[in-house]
Amino acid sequence: MKADNAQPSIHFSTLGGKIETPVIVDLMARALSNPALLSLAAGFTDNEVLPKELVGDCVAALTAAAQSNEALQYGSNQGRLRLRELTCEFLATYPGERSSAFQPDDVFITNGSQQALYMAAQTLCDPGDIVLVQEPSYFVCLEMLRGLGLRPVGMPCDPAGAIIADELEGLLAELERKGERDRVKAVYLVSYFGNPSSRSMPAAEKQAMADCLRSHGFIVPVIEDAAYRELYYDAPYPAPTIFTMPAFDCFPKLYLGTYTKPFATGLKIGYGICSHAAWRDKMLCMKGHQDFGSSHFNQAIIERVLDQGLYAAHLSNIQGHYAGKATVLNDALEASGLRAGGWHWEKPGGGLIFWLRGPAGADLRMDRGFCTRCIDSGVLYVPGDLCFTGGNPLNYARVSTGALPPDKIRIAVERFAQVALSD
Amino acid sequence: MKADNAQPSIHFSTLGGKIETPVIVDLMARALSNPALLSLAAGFTDNEVLPKELVGDCVAALTAAAQSNEALQYGSNQGRLRLRELTCEFLATYPGERSSAFQPDDVFITNGSQQALYMAAQTLCDPGDIVLVQEPSYFVCLEMLRGLGLRPVGMPCDPAGAIIADELEGLLAELERKGERDRVKAVYLVSYFGNPSSRSMPAAEKQAMADCLRSHGFIVPVIEDAAYRELYYDAPYPAPTIFTMPAFDCFPKLYLGTYTKPFATGLKIGYGICSHAAWRDKMLCMKGHQDFGSSHFNQAIIERVLDQGLYAAHLSNIQGHYAGKATVLNDALEASGLRAGGWHWEKPGGGLIFWLRGPAGADLRMDRGFCTRCIDSGVLYVPGDLCFTGGNPLNYARVSTGALPPDKIRIAVERFAQVALSD
Repeated sequence: MKADNAQPSIHFSTLGGKIETPVIVDLMARALSNPALLSLAAGFTDNEVLPKELVGDCVAALTAAAQSNEALQYGSNQGRLRLRELTCEFLATYPGERSSAFQPDDVFITNGSQQALYMAAQTLCDPGDIVLVQEPSYFVCLEMLRGLGLRPVGMPCDPAGAIIADELEGLLAELERKGERDRVKAVYLVSYFGNPSSRSMPAAEKQAMADCLRSHGFIVPVIEDAAYRELYYDAPYPAPTIFTMPAFDCFPKLYLGTYTKPFATGLKIGYGICSHAAWRDKMLCMKGHQDFGSSHFNQAIIERVLDQGLYAAHLSNIQGHYAGKATVLNDALEASGLRAGGWHWEKPGGGLIFWLRGPAGADLRMDRGFCTRCIDSGVLYVPGDLCFTGGNPLNYARVSTGALPPDKIRIAVERFAQVALSD
Repeated sequence: MKADNAQPSIHFSTLGGKIETPVIVDLMARALSNPALLSLAAGFTDNEVLPKELVGDCVAALTAAAQSNEALQYGSNQGRLRLRELTCEFLATYPGERSSAFQPDDVFITNGSQQALYMAAQTLCDPGDIVLVQEPSYFVCLEMLRGLGLRPVGMPCDPAGAIIADELEGLLAELERKGERDRVKAVYLVSYFGNPSSRSMPAAEKQAMADCLRSHGFIVPVIEDAAYRELYYDAPYPAPTIFTMPAFDCFPKLYLGTYTKPFATGLKIGYGICSHAAWRDKMLCMKGHQDFGSSHFNQAIIERVLDQGLYAAHLSNIQGHYAGKATVLNDALEASGLRAGGWHWEKPGGGLIFWLRGPAGADLRMDRGFCTRCIDSGVLYVPGDLCFTGGNPLNYARVSTGALPPDKIRIAVERFAQVALSD
């Protein structure tokens, strides 16, 4: 099978010809294949708090002799109705949300929220089209968009990652001038403990962005990725979603949520909620072609956890755990001498990620000197340039608290700091 | 959220604008939403033999206190190595297969084999490109190809569904004449207890097809869909796969297998095996963008079943069960008077499907008179025209033994026959 040179060459599709291995796949493979390498890179959850017992108990109940086998059968393309109902009920418990904002008919269950994001891009965008994103933004999304031949374009943001509405006006005017207005097909926001900025979007920032888009006539679908929303440390972030805010009433909206980060990663169940029926139906058609339904069994497991009222206690447990790990990472960073060496970060209020800014001039790109020395020293991070549409600045690193236990977080930070401070 | 008329219209992508709800989604929804409607349509497995106890036992072991939590963590994009190894070992046990034909590095785990098929089409084909298929072929694949803007083109087949090599020569010559040679990007075969023909491809038929393609210079990727291969009633079908047959050595090859039909449907785990490293890597890139890995937990369950040597006994059990159900369906059909009414079918040697040919002139299309009367009478089938690239002939029906218990199969056949014989 390896004698590929004996095989004829294939003339791949336009999409297939250009596609390249996503960085996330490479990072995950490196993390999984070399246990000596301490990975602050991959956005893994912590094995320590994965709900093994809870999943075991739920499956025991679902597979009890008296139970029907229905969870092991195919389900519908859209996903289990009761799970969709419970998901809406759960979201309505967040402070400030309209309880009617989320409707079960608008929910569709996916293979992680990534699949919903992919189908959104497929249904909205042709090659060459533009998706407006934050700077920095989720690098997996940027790569995926480019893999479809799309152009992520950064909205002007301050160094913390906040959208600057005045400058956004300038960008929209420029797109208009360049005749690219009609190429802008969507806006993509990571709004809760953002990946990689770890910043959440205040309601005022969302509102200003919506007002700016609307006043310039850019009434395009807005996608709000809330993958880390449940992972707050002390309290939920107070801003409501775009579904609840009246400023977004005129926009088609897609909310991306997941049970992968906050519940059981290995079940790979996420969801989209779409305010626009025609768009939702298009995404469901895509899903019909791609797999005609996500694992019905895994949906049943999560449905049971929610239905039995077991989710809140689970969340409370992992929130405390990740808060503790953030303190470990923060303390290790503070103790490392990095601040004195010109490094900056803020301790986040939730999520799994710290966003480190190195001194001006530092070049943290993959496979360059700094990065290579880190790997040689046994520590891996996500180079921050991957999170910017223009591939710069180069002096940021995304590090995650998720995968490593506290003692290894400390060692990993020491290794990182040693490279950083001798650089 | 329902006030969609208050929403602006969206300018969808070319793909999104044209996509329509796949028939399978509609059929599954009808079957799931109306228990009074007896569905001979949906290709469901039988709840009766879904391995509830086996899955329960495996999960109990995987979630035991002493076990690591790794199965609930992310896995790799390609899928668990041990599962890929065990899959290759399993396939090598089929009579006539070369044990070296299947290599773990060439395997990738997907959300049912449908996802592998989708990624194959994405990586190989641009809109307007041609995929050669059998007549009849799997209607879900035909719809998916059309959803991507592709053209499935039928290879000449006899009424049983066997490819007629002499006439295939004519088709290839005609494609050449029309300047469409370079648009032919793949061949798609359902070769074991085919959906919908329930026919398997003898080695000689595969060989003749390969020889014909090669002699005309159509050295394009060949995709062999073997979703029902494990569901034989008495003995495995004796023809080896295209991976083992020397006639296919010069073709890039993709084998599609699944644990969805023969094991636990609700786990939604399938796989592809690709002989061509560059093509496999392209599909893995696509997967990286779509979901960066299928449910790791579900992979671990199946891996455990294989690793503990429990798969063979499970298969033996369901093979006997489906053989029995095929006898029930066959007996009911024989007793129904349909043969005397001009209907024809052959009892298959495996799988979940019977392929019924009605009298010439019968029009069994969806939502036409015959079909509507069947639904009114409480029975659903798959109109056979959906399985032909040209949408005809109209007098075939695909009926499945999978979902219904024996007594309901008998009632469903009675209802069907009543409509058919009064038509």
